Amino acid sequence: MELRERIRDVVDFPHEGIVFKDITPLIADPVAFRTAIDRLAEAISGEDVDRIVGIEARGFIFGSALACVMGKGFSIVRKPGKLPWRTDREEYSLEYGKSVLEIHEDAVQAGERVVIVDDLLATGGTAGAASRLVERRGGVVTSLAFVVELAFLGGREQLEGRRVHSLVEY
Amino acid sequence: MELRERIRDVVDFPHEGIVFKDITPLIADPVAFRTAIDRLAEAISGEDVDRIVGIEARGFIFGSALACVMGKGFSIVRKPGKLPWRTDREEYSLEYGKSVLEIHEDAVQAGERVVIVDDLLATGGTAGAASRLVERRGGVVTSLAFVVELAFLGGREQLEGRRVHSLVEY
Repeated sequence: MELRERIRDVVDFPHEGIVFKDITPLIADPVAFRTAIDRLAEAISGEDVDRIVGIEARGFIFGSALACVMGKGFSIVRKPGKLPWRTDREEYSLEYGKSVLEIHEDAVQAGERVVIVDDLLATGGTAGAASRLVERRGGVVTSLAFVVELAFLGGREQLEGRRVHSLVEY
Repeated sequence: MELRERIRDVVDFPHEGIVFKDITPLIADPVAFRTAIDRLAEAISGEDVDRIVGIEARGFIFGSALACVMGKGFSIVRKPGKLPWRTDREEYSLEYGKSVLEIHEDAVQAGERVVIVDDLLATGGTAGAASRLVERRGGVVTSLAFVVELAFLGGREQLEGRRVHSLVEY
């Protein structure tokens, strides 16, 4: 199964000059969706994982299914103001300006081994912020797993030696 | 397994006077999370379902895992401006003002039998808008499935005879 064929290029989204990698055709296809989840599970199978953490919002799609299939707990990292209980927050840089991610204080227990999941690795800003949040809770980021990696943007280098898996590379 | 014990009340979120039902402790617990997904699957097991549709953002968590476990395709309904490709949109009323949901034009095929999933049924405004979007694509909403139902808000009545499942009722 070639997952790449189920990823749609959308030109000029969200800004002119950007080619957006749309994963909605992949998840809409039951075989492609299940294949993606099984390949993520296989990629992290050697890591003795306690918990999956998904990044809002498309990271919820892949992270949740992966956690369920592997029998792990699932925790979430969200944009500011969305989590109802006590949170920790991390600011990170975007191309223009800054953004913030939040995590619940009880989302990860000290010593837990965590895989962070998102649909796409671009510059690594979001994934790096999520990693720092998990690590401040006392978690160990055993790896970060993505369906799509835009390798030409150098996101892996921004993740400072943390292990990275991806299923489809551009 | 009593799922209710894994749902946390958060007082005065997002507004003063609201008691928010926080599902993050439920999904963080691997047994409770898998139990919720298995009970949703059991609830819809008689419906000959082709596709699961999840509503942004917490509906992605339960809808995606349910689709993956059941071997179904997963499609998403999102807040405006988030979906990259061609969309249909539906406006609906909130307590104060209006909101909009969007769906990709190819998210549901004509004749497909669809279950719409979200974490919580409150007044039914969001779920009703998602139902109309699916139906305008030619889909048949066989049911709507929620983890939590705030029955005192009367959301079922707003869903105009569509079948509703929920796992924990308040």
